[in-house]
Amino acid sequence: MPDTKSFHMSPEEFRRQGYAVIDWIADYFARVEDFPVLSRASPGEIRSQLPQAAPQAGEAFETILGDVERVILPGITHWQSPNFYAYFPANASGPAILGDLLSSGLGVQGMLWSTSPACTELETQVLDWLVPMLGLPERFLSSGSGGGVIHDSASSAVLCALLAGRERATQFHSNRHGCDGRLIAYCSTQTHSSVEKAAKIAGIGAENLRQIEVDENFAMRPQALARQIAADEAAGLTPFFVCATVGTTSSNAIDPVRALARVCRQSNLWLHVDAAMCGTAALCPEFRSLHDGVEFADSYCFNPHKWMFTNFDCDCFYVADRKHLIQTLSVLPEYLRNQATESGAVIDYRDWQVPLGRRFRALKLWFVIRHYGIEGLRHHVREHVRLAQEFAGWVRNDERFELAAPAPLNLVCFRLRQGDAANQALLNALNASGDLYLTHTKLDGKLTLRLCVGQTNTEARHVQAAWRRVLEETARLAG
Amino acid sequence: MPDTKSFHMSPEEFRRQGYAVIDWIADYFARVEDFPVLSRASPGEIRSQLPQAAPQAGEAFETILGDVERVILPGITHWQSPNFYAYFPANASGPAILGDLLSSGLGVQGMLWSTSPACTELETQVLDWLVPMLGLPERFLSSGSGGGVIHDSASSAVLCALLAGRERATQFHSNRHGCDGRLIAYCSTQTHSSVEKAAKIAGIGAENLRQIEVDENFAMRPQALARQIAADEAAGLTPFFVCATVGTTSSNAIDPVRALARVCRQSNLWLHVDAAMCGTAALCPEFRSLHDGVEFADSYCFNPHKWMFTNFDCDCFYVADRKHLIQTLSVLPEYLRNQATESGAVIDYRDWQVPLGRRFRALKLWFVIRHYGIEGLRHHVREHVRLAQEFAGWVRNDERFELAAPAPLNLVCFRLRQGDAANQALLNALNASGDLYLTHTKLDGKLTLRLCVGQTNTEARHVQAAWRRVLEETARLAG
Repeated sequence: MPDTKSFHMSPEEFRRQGYAVIDWIADYFARVEDFPVLSRASPGEIRSQLPQAAPQAGEAFETILGDVERVILPGITHWQSPNFYAYFPANASGPAILGDLLSSGLGVQGMLWSTSPACTELETQVLDWLVPMLGLPERFLSSGSGGGVIHDSASSAVLCALLAGRERATQFHSNRHGCDGRLIAYCSTQTHSSVEKAAKIAGIGAENLRQIEVDENFAMRPQALARQIAADEAAGLTPFFVCATVGTTSSNAIDPVRALARVCRQSNLWLHVDAAMCGTAALCPEFRSLHDGVEFADSYCFNPHKWMFTNFDCDCFYVADRKHLIQTLSVLPEYLRNQATESGAVIDYRDWQVPLGRRFRALKLWFVIRHYGIEGLRHHVREHVRLAQEFAGWVRNDERFELAAPAPLNLVCFRLRQGDAANQALLNALNASGDLYLTHTKLDGKLTLRLCVGQTNTEARHVQAAWRRVLEETARLAG
Repeated sequence: MPDTKSFHMSPEEFRRQGYAVIDWIADYFARVEDFPVLSRASPGEIRSQLPQAAPQAGEAFETILGDVERVILPGITHWQSPNFYAYFPANASGPAILGDLLSSGLGVQGMLWSTSPACTELETQVLDWLVPMLGLPERFLSSGSGGGVIHDSASSAVLCALLAGRERATQFHSNRHGCDGRLIAYCSTQTHSSVEKAAKIAGIGAENLRQIEVDENFAMRPQALARQIAADEAAGLTPFFVCATVGTTSSNAIDPVRALARVCRQSNLWLHVDAAMCGTAALCPEFRSLHDGVEFADSYCFNPHKWMFTNFDCDCFYVADRKHLIQTLSVLPEYLRNQATESGAVIDYRDWQVPLGRRFRALKLWFVIRHYGIEGLRHHVREHVRLAQEFAGWVRNDERFELAAPAPLNLVCFRLRQGDAANQALLNALNASGDLYLTHTKLDGKLTLRLCVGQTNTEARHVQAAWRRVLEETARLAG
């Protein structure tokens, strides 16, 4: 007799507990403003409340969910709070969460087309939809030589771009024989740290990543790039890759993509455009000039998991010529061979990314785009920009403060004119209050506060309260 | 007046539609056996049913969920079917799906400890729990010099292991100046393709990855490894990394980790143990010898998203000495600096992985371990092994068939004695029937069918039916 004992959750129990978790999340949204935005847990505090060892016997689901409330919640920094202005937005939404839930429930692996055709085809189609939605060039469409794919993050996207550029430059020699220490990549002093990480990972080396100087708006200087490339070429090195940024993490600086592309073309360098922070803004025609020159890029990414209401992870990565990317990352062992792949009629996304496995991430993006429609997405992006601009205006009109950088979109970099100590004290006081959460950067060597408006439920009243709290703490620290 | 128009899903609408998605998934589990396991969609078929462009106006959630049923479902290969025996199991479960749902709802970024202390601390604790659960060495515990982290996949884990090994061998020279084409890595002819992919990505080069010969059980020969290392050293090259496998994808071959470790220690090579497929079996004391010698490994991974009822993505990656990994992957720009990080009292998992961002993946693993308890997990793993062994016995007792490799656990590699054409015909017939889904490999140059028992709801009746279908199709093809 087979043993029919089972520890699995029955479909009926799943239904009951599933409702409970849905309720928990709906209630969480309703009360999220009641929590201090930045967790007040001290190091080790959450861990000390967890048992030393895993349980021998299973526990009731109610007990587990109770521990989420009791143990986990105090250790949460509330990225979904409308008072979260730190780092970058990670704005989730109902349709995204439910699309992702469906992905978990279907539990498919999308590594190959054949392992779930819908997983690949929906992804291709939704990424094609986004091309005209963002005013991106047609060469990124899958119907031509290009195409899009969902990565976990812009870090992974820039790594893959760097790799494809590396292999294009060496004619796949480095894939076979390794790097030789002579390949040179370029970014600016303001480029995200993920590019340095990618240069290390890819065997290029951090010292072979040149950080080009920026102008007064923190945007890369094309002339300086051209000079450095010429110097490296003269030294017998091999320039191969440039990363331009549309909206730096530090200050939303926008590199002059068109001018940089011209420089890249002269030396046949791969141009990657990282629009992780700001690409979403191009949904609105009035912000579409952000993408000026992107038609000359070899690759591009933006993050719906930042500013397009799609929960992490969802970075959209495009290439103008997919064959370089695929040839760079493709390895085909016998156990993955199949007729569809060999027919050449399908996309196998495992060859477009670092991991082999992949979940059905297109579902959440599809749900978001369909729930909001282009119109709804535009509305909320415009509203975020409007609120940030309002905040920037208040800063501009208060002589104790200064804007530390242009605020082209939804990020405001500002500081007290009194210097670093005053700004650090202000930042600490605001974050300790729990009323809001800001982070900092350094611009022109000075400590600068960053306020990024982009959470799903951030409204005018929240941004007004943020400014009121800035003024209150400023007055208190001055007094 | 602020514009208060909103396109967001209200908490009440979220609750209502959330119930609907939970119901959809519960119903899906109940009817999953009714679908052909391998999708019958032809290339482009799913895509052709999707609109050419994104909608301008938002759509009702009911419409979207209706399209999941109508458009998406026919393009799904049912990894959650109890009749899925292909590739590897990707066995999800109720508690995992609900833990993951909670992660989506909380929407936190766990890149730094401070960006949600609970996200980091729960992960550290649960990964520490797993060390004694699997009989892993104490040096992998976070309380000593080691520690564990959740990666998306074993591909990413082996890449990070390779990088840490690369930097240990070059004293961080390659991170700064790039690779030099002289670093040599080792695996076997049976090692997963992710190691070759990692060698390409990391600037090592595929031709500098030596594929060592295997014995009659498809396990790496330590003597052959030692000889190759000596030859490479004699040639002035720099051996630095070995990947051993506990359960190859192709045939579940188990490399002799203890003997390989001895070879690695002689030349100070980084030893990574990839137990993605089979590590879970070590939950049961009777299978714990799988991990013999792992106490000498520098790193190790196994995949709860394969065989431990945790939906993708969840690979557990351990290092014996975390400082190499962290120093390899750490980049600290100003905008990520914070007091907790500078205190040195906390873990920032962004330095343990390729991407910067990370979702709260520990929740689903915590839910699974607590729901099942060690006892429940063991029960189901034992049951899967028992069913696979029963199947292997039927193969062994039918003279038309042969086992193509030892079946130590839950994977049976078998074939008709008649040769490749017969086996291909059998495989095609079985998969086309929709009743079950198997994949293939080549062993000793011969086409071989793989039957991997590990789906959550696979019971004795399913495996019995699988064998019955094999016999029926064999008879039909012979007739």
